[in-house]
Amino acid sequence: MALFSSLTPVFIAIICVLIGVILKKTNGEKEKRETKSKPLSRPWVDEDLKDGTDHHLEEEDVDEEWQGLDENVAHVPFFAERYSEGEMIKRSQMFYELLNKRRSVRFLSDEPVPREVIDNVIRTAGTSPSGAHTEPWTFVVVQDPYLKHKIREIVEEEEEINYKKRMGDRWVNDLKRLRTNWIKEYLDTAPYLILIFKQVYGWLPNGKKKTHYYNEISVSIACGILLAALQNAGLYTVTSTPLNCGPQLRVLLQRPANEKLLLLLPVGYPKKEATVPALTRKPLEDIMVVM
Amino acid sequence: MALFSSLTPVFIAIICVLIGVILKKTNGEKEKRETKSKPLSRPWVDEDLKDGTDHHLEEEDVDEEWQGLDENVAHVPFFAERYSEGEMIKRSQMFYELLNKRRSVRFLSDEPVPREVIDNVIRTAGTSPSGAHTEPWTFVVVQDPYLKHKIREIVEEEEEINYKKRMGDRWVNDLKRLRTNWIKEYLDTAPYLILIFKQVYGWLPNGKKKTHYYNEISVSIACGILLAALQNAGLYTVTSTPLNCGPQLRVLLQRPANEKLLLLLPVGYPKKEATVPALTRKPLEDIMVVM
Repeated sequence: MALFSSLTPVFIAIICVLIGVILKKTNGEKEKRETKSKPLSRPWVDEDLKDGTDHHLEEEDVDEEWQGLDENVAHVPFFAERYSEGEMIKRSQMFYELLNKRRSVRFLSDEPVPREVIDNVIRTAGTSPSGAHTEPWTFVVVQDPYLKHKIREIVEEEEEINYKKRMGDRWVNDLKRLRTNWIKEYLDTAPYLILIFKQVYGWLPNGKKKTHYYNEISVSIACGILLAALQNAGLYTVTSTPLNCGPQLRVLLQRPANEKLLLLLPVGYPKKEATVPALTRKPLEDIMVVM
Repeated sequence: MALFSSLTPVFIAIICVLIGVILKKTNGEKEKRETKSKPLSRPWVDEDLKDGTDHHLEEEDVDEEWQGLDENVAHVPFFAERYSEGEMIKRSQMFYELLNKRRSVRFLSDEPVPREVIDNVIRTAGTSPSGAHTEPWTFVVVQDPYLKHKIREIVEEEEEINYKKRMGDRWVNDLKRLRTNWIKEYLDTAPYLILIFKQVYGWLPNGKKKTHYYNEISVSIACGILLAALQNAGLYTVTSTPLNCGPQLRVLLQRPANEKLLLLLPVGYPKKEATVPALTRKPLEDIMVVM
C-alpha cells in the first residue's frame, strides 16, 4: 500500500503527460491533413501562383495607408459610337465567326512575324480593365533563339516531372486526347514566346507597396483580349500554364519578385502539317441561361 | 507529511492538466493566426470564390479515376487563313483602336438592346480556350426587371458593408477617383445583366465529379473575349466583382453548388450624360519587355 501510494503520483504524472502528448499529436495531424489536403484540391495550381499562400506573407506588413493615388481625377463626358441595330447584329455575328476559327495550335512554323503586329496585340491587351485601374501585367516577348531554347529546357524538364509524377493519372489521361506531352517543340520554332506575368503587388512613388486587387482575374481577362487580337491578326497560339516553371522562368527573364508567371503563349503561323483534335464547342444553350 | 504525500498526486495531476491545456491553447492560437492571416492578404477575394479553401472539401472524395473523356479523338489537318503582312499590321492596328475606345461605363441607359447581339457575344465568349477543354463557364443573362432589382438589393446591401467595413480605408480610397460606391443604379437600368459563373467542377456521364483544371483563369479569359465582343458590337459594361454576394446570387438564380459567381457585367448603351474618369493607360513600353 505504501509502495502503491508513493507510486500513484508517478502514474498520474505519466498518464497526464501521455494525454498531453496525444492532444498535441491530434492537433498536429489535423494541421498536417489541412496542409496536405490543399494540393489535392487544385493540383494544377503552381505553387508560385498561389498568392493566397506566398503573397500574404509579403503583404502582411503593408500598412493600411493611402496608396497615394490621385483622388482628384476629373470625370469627363463619354461619347460612344452608335451602330444601328442591324449593324450591331452583323458585327457581332462576324466577330463570332472570326473567333470561332481560333484553335489551340501546337504546331507552329518558324516563319517570321512582323514585330509591329506583336506590338499592336500587346497594346490591345493593355486596354483591358483591371481592379482599381492598377494594370497589373507585364508581357515579356522573347524572340532570342538562345533564350527560347533555355525556356524550352526549363519547361520540358518540369513538364516531364508533371506528367510522370505531379499531375496524377486522371489529369494525364484527360490530356491524352489533346496529344499533349512534355515535348514542346513550339518553344523553339515559334518566332515569339509571350510570357505573361501578373504583378501581385506594385510600388507607389513613395516606395510603399501598392495593392493589386484581383490581379489574377485582371491579367487573365487581358489575356482573353490578347487571344482575340491574335486571332484577328491571323496569328495562332496555344494557351499554356507551365506548372512549377514560374520561379525559374522569372529568374531567367530577370523579372522582379512581385511578378508571377501566369501564362506562356508561343505565337506564330501554323505549320503546313499542323493538326488539331476534332473537338467541338458546347452549343449556346449549354453555356447560356436567360431569365 | 502524510497529508502532503496524499495531496502530491492531486497537485501533479492539476499541473499536468494545466500543461495539457496550455499546449492545446498554443496550437489553437497558432491555427487561428493562420486562418486570420489569409483574409488580410487578398481582402478582395470573395470567400465563395476561394475554391482553394471551400472546394477542397468537396473534392477530397473524388477518386483518382479516369474522367471518362474519350481518348480516341481524331486529329484533323488545320488550315488557317493567311493575311499579307501589310494586312496583318492594318488589322492589328484597327483592332487596337477599336478596343482602346473601351471604357468601364457606370451610367447605362435603359434603351433595349437586340437579344441576337447578346446571343452572339456569349457564343463568342464560348470560343475561349479552357484547361483540358472543359469549358467551365455559365453565362446567366438577366433581363427580367424584378430579378434585376432583386440582384441590385443583394449587391447594394453587401457592397455597403464592403465599403464601410470589409474593404478597409486604403481600398475605399483607391476607388474614390473612380467615384464608385455601393449605389449601383445600372443594375436596374441596364437592359441585361450578365452574371458569369465558373464551374469549379463538373459531372461525368457516370455521375462522378469531373475536374475543371484552371477554371478561374479559363473563365476570366472567356470574359476578356466577351469584353472584346461587346466593344465590337458597340455595347458597354463595367467589369464588377460583387464581393460576398456570390452565394445569395447563386441561390437567387438557381445555379447548382458547383458554380461560383466570378463577375457581373451590366450591359447596354451609355447614357447621354455618362461620364468616365479621365484616366490614361500605361504606354506599351511600360507593359512590354522584348528579349
